Amino acid sequence: GDAAAGKAKAAVCAACHGADGTAMIPTYPNLKGQNEQYLVSALKAYKNKQRTGGMAAVMQPQASMLSDTDIENVAAYYASLK
Amino acid sequence: GDAAAGKAKAAVCAACHGADGTAMIPTYPNLKGQNEQYLVSALKAYKNKQRTGGMAAVMQPQASMLSDTDIENVAAYYASLK
Repeated sequence: GDAAAGKAKAAVCAACHGADGTAMIPTYPNLKGQNEQYLVSALKAYKNKQRTGGMAAVMQPQASMLSDTDIENVAAYYASLK
Repeated sequence: GDAAAGKAKAAVCAACHGADGTAMIPTYPNLKGQNEQYLVSALKAYKNKQRTGGMAAVMQPQASMLSDTDIENVAAYYASLK
């Protein structure tokens, strides 16, 4: 994925996951430095409604607004953060 | 949760997620320093079969072997890792 493009797309993510990928609220996961392929897998699982429970009611609609390319880019962005 | 008790229970987790919480394989998530409450939520979602897709076929049976107390302890252990 393209981390620079992902950064632009990730503005909305930052409200919960933090501008630096450190979550604002402890029920949310930190994303900084997470494995890119895992983040792609997780976002696609939310998009495909394969994750329910927990905060999935929030993440399903968020992920549904991302194209597969968006998902790859956002994943690359968070994976790149230290 | 009790991180020391969680460490003992987490031996099986380390095969994929690493002894230090850094995943061995990029499709798996790193767990070190992840938020404890998020880890509890995620493990319970796997246990309750609320997560499918991705590696959920592996995680559902793993989580099903953990009691709620085990889940709290394992979450405390990974959250404690730097």
